[in-house]
Amino acid sequence: MKITLAQINYHVGNFERNSKLIIDAIRKAIKDKSDLIVFSELSLTGYPPHDLLEHRDFIVKCKEYINRITTECKGIMAIVGAPAINRNHSGKKLYNAAYILNDGEISDIVYKSLLPTYDIFDEYRYFEPSNVFKTIKLKEKKLAVTICEDLWDEQGFENEFSSTRMYSVSPLNELSKLRPDIIINISASPFSHTKIKSKVKIFTDKASMYKIPLFMVNQVGANTDLIFEGNSMVVGPGGNIIDIFPSFTEHTDSFELSEVMKSSTAVKYEPNRIEMIYSALILGLKDYFEKMNFRSAVLGLSGGIDSAVCLCLAARALGPSKVRALLLPSMYSSKHSVDDAVSLCNNLEVQYDIINIEKAYSAIEESLSDIMKDLPADVTEENIQARLRSIMLMAVSNKFENILLNTSNKSETAVGYSTLYGDMAGSISVLGDVYKTDIYQLADYINNDNTVIPANIINKPPSAELRPGQKDSDSLPDYEILDSILYQYIELQKPVSDITGRSLSPELVKSITDLVNRNEYKRFQAPPILRISSKAFGIGRRMPLVGIY
Amino acid sequence: MKITLAQINYHVGNFERNSKLIIDAIRKAIKDKSDLIVFSELSLTGYPPHDLLEHRDFIVKCKEYINRITTECKGIMAIVGAPAINRNHSGKKLYNAAYILNDGEISDIVYKSLLPTYDIFDEYRYFEPSNVFKTIKLKEKKLAVTICEDLWDEQGFENEFSSTRMYSVSPLNELSKLRPDIIINISASPFSHTKIKSKVKIFTDKASMYKIPLFMVNQVGANTDLIFEGNSMVVGPGGNIIDIFPSFTEHTDSFELSEVMKSSTAVKYEPNRIEMIYSALILGLKDYFEKMNFRSAVLGLSGGIDSAVCLCLAARALGPSKVRALLLPSMYSSKHSVDDAVSLCNNLEVQYDIINIEKAYSAIEESLSDIMKDLPADVTEENIQARLRSIMLMAVSNKFENILLNTSNKSETAVGYSTLYGDMAGSISVLGDVYKTDIYQLADYINNDNTVIPANIINKPPSAELRPGQKDSDSLPDYEILDSILYQYIELQKPVSDITGRSLSPELVKSITDLVNRNEYKRFQAPPILRISSKAFGIGRRMPLVGIY
Repeated sequence: MKITLAQINYHVGNFERNSKLIIDAIRKAIKDKSDLIVFSELSLTGYPPHDLLEHRDFIVKCKEYINRITTECKGIMAIVGAPAINRNHSGKKLYNAAYILNDGEISDIVYKSLLPTYDIFDEYRYFEPSNVFKTIKLKEKKLAVTICEDLWDEQGFENEFSSTRMYSVSPLNELSKLRPDIIINISASPFSHTKIKSKVKIFTDKASMYKIPLFMVNQVGANTDLIFEGNSMVVGPGGNIIDIFPSFTEHTDSFELSEVMKSSTAVKYEPNRIEMIYSALILGLKDYFEKMNFRSAVLGLSGGIDSAVCLCLAARALGPSKVRALLLPSMYSSKHSVDDAVSLCNNLEVQYDIINIEKAYSAIEESLSDIMKDLPADVTEENIQARLRSIMLMAVSNKFENILLNTSNKSETAVGYSTLYGDMAGSISVLGDVYKTDIYQLADYINNDNTVIPANIINKPPSAELRPGQKDSDSLPDYEILDSILYQYIELQKPVSDITGRSLSPELVKSITDLVNRNEYKRFQAPPILRISSKAFGIGRRMPLVGIY
Repeated sequence: MKITLAQINYHVGNFERNSKLIIDAIRKAIKDKSDLIVFSELSLTGYPPHDLLEHRDFIVKCKEYINRITTECKGIMAIVGAPAINRNHSGKKLYNAAYILNDGEISDIVYKSLLPTYDIFDEYRYFEPSNVFKTIKLKEKKLAVTICEDLWDEQGFENEFSSTRMYSVSPLNELSKLRPDIIINISASPFSHTKIKSKVKIFTDKASMYKIPLFMVNQVGANTDLIFEGNSMVVGPGGNIIDIFPSFTEHTDSFELSEVMKSSTAVKYEPNRIEMIYSALILGLKDYFEKMNFRSAVLGLSGGIDSAVCLCLAARALGPSKVRALLLPSMYSSKHSVDDAVSLCNNLEVQYDIINIEKAYSAIEESLSDIMKDLPADVTEENIQARLRSIMLMAVSNKFENILLNTSNKSETAVGYSTLYGDMAGSISVLGDVYKTDIYQLADYINNDNTVIPANIINKPPSAELRPGQKDSDSLPDYEILDSILYQYIELQKPVSDITGRSLSPELVKSITDLVNRNEYKRFQAPPILRISSKAFGIGRRMPLVGIY
């Protein structure tokens, strides 16, 4: 028996594109004499469809396109993910379903049991959990078809304050009673650089626990903030990885079951974390532009490391000719900042313009002088510069249809070291889930073969250059220390009193976590952030704005 | 038996404040010889606590403060809402609980069964649903204690595409088998102007169905976007409303059960919709400032109706001395716009300043001239004006700690008739859930006793005044028509083909719904919006950004 796994890049709500990709893969698999082709979770709609699932016409369309795909399935079985209507008279309106297509018919449907409803997941908002377990017959074999989280039954909580597991059912345990021969898992599991290994372990553990082979197909590609790495897998009955698909790229391959059963192949999967983050961000940017039908980007290049790394990523993702940089010096910008930025543009062959903001800044100051009187300069004047730069960038964006990239990093986004409507502006935040210490590692990674980012950009002390001689270290601890506090507070959700580490006083920890809490209002208006961690700012982290904590 | 209902304004996460309010009410009720005092759902934490529920120290604090409150409960039973840890080894970590406090002890706990997970609600993200039903004994009576949604078991879906009910269990039906004497419901049910009557009907129906009296306590006050109207109720066993508490204000009152049982009182509850919206917005603004510890507000006054209504609301909510207006005319502003705005400020006794933005605008244009060359003017130049105004407003906000109010309405927010980082800026959107047609009604309501808003502001054709002679009607249909399409699409979630009405062509409908969809990216970065409808933009409406629909 030949099984094909199709790791495909879907676009949310784009039924024409998604169904064409699915049908093309089915036709090719038929030619290859495959018996079964497997697509990822909600492949027809793309993941995550969010509240489109509440719209009746969206669900009607799902059914129409499933029917179209079904007619293609002759001489092959296909497993396609799509929502299905719940026909019972109570419960949520939909199931998250795996359609089993065979002989030109919908021969069966399997519903998802475990519905992730935490972090970025809202599945119980839309779907009824299933408690019916059955296997699917294909030739002489029985398939245990599961959907993503169905195999994650053993997971606890990142921040455990009681001994509970999240789920009370183990779908695979129920299915194992029916003596299946093969585990199929269709997934839409987004990338997180902290979970690369533990994710793979879920699948190898399940295969070895039940001593049957496992075929997992994950979505690849990005839809707004969520980036899916793919890494679809074939695991032998001994828990050995027989094949793992490449990350961040489409890939389809077929496997002979008899060979999988007896194979002693055991792939060692040890990817480089920074390389994975780099590739995730490239794909995130590329897909954001392609799927939004945007052609080109613009960003403000300050001479600092964040905007430099962001420009490198954009030039790589979109092509250097599709990116332009604006250098927007003020009276406080150092000469070397402009020079460094120009060198970088030249190295990347990216178009740049220099607009000095001093005159416009003075005109604004003058207009405000009656109101401001002689009050001493403070953060007001710094913010005016940042916001004026955003006016210039957005003007270029509006006039030339260049989409503005936001270049803020996760460390400064966390503590609010940024200006609302100023450097917080942008259509998408490229680095908003990357801590400053990881941005240095990205810069080194980019410079690995030859120096693209001038050494001076990497080595100089970070500064916003909004007043004479300003340095980040005037207001913030060293980034090593800052990031260690932030990671424990944000990703690990530790109570403030449990955050520990070298050179961390309780007062310092408290001052930083207070900054994180106090700046929720700024992040509320931030652009979508490409997510690469297990806890990014955005829809996965829902903190109250009006609240004491 | 004497029962006290305490309709109180809680602040999310503010354990000191919330517990003090609860303890004060308990002490007073003891003096009044009450047997039972009832507080609203999650009264200790305030609703909604969002992801604070995932933080271990937050849950530890809940327990500490529950213990403090418990020691006060001598000679009285109190029902207090707070999260409780799930001690089973599987399932979500918490329950949404009603603590039963009696004789200085936690004498019992009741858990919520039906967990709303739709629109603005995310309860299944945090809580395990309960399937245990029991009554609580108080003297010779048995209480059926339910939590908010537990009584909403019969609700279907606003946009039904199948015949399902949302829930498969009726908690009250289960409880009725235990022959309770009284229904208690503790709620945190936010205001929606489209659901005023249907909400009341839920409670009168339940009382008359089971022929026992019902005591419902709802939270009052606002936490960020969500505004709770209160309107706590006592319903007789015949379904007659014996008392309904005032809207949008704290209120505590006691009832003798024997009198409730025999009372033939039947209050007619017929509130005025516009008055309710007005009061909701006033409370929303007031609480946002008080709970965020903000002292004063600033807004841009254009001479149009939206900013005028917004200023009236702010002056009423915060006091005229706590609000200042900026008039920011450009070369395209009409003389009467400034005059009308000045009259309004004088009528309200609100401080105002006039800053002409022409010079600063010219300086920006000049700085950009090399890049823009001689390209014809378009939306770029309009947006520069809007963004420059936002710089001026934010400068005043930063320098004087006046919080910027956003004055956009729901109609323009829906179709993207607004500038990102320009008139979309602000700490909170006051009118972002109010359609333009309702804003006219609010203006009439405000002018009811005496003319506060000059007639000219109300009567002139709406215009953004960003180019010579510009009118809203150049780009949009009449607001009556526009709002009718938007209401059917957004609140009723109708498929485009089902949207009907006078003078609506399918092409017009499609062009408007396309605008709604295409402008998701702008709303993603909008401020929090005071919610007064059943479907506001914000966390309750989660549409994909990268998506075809």
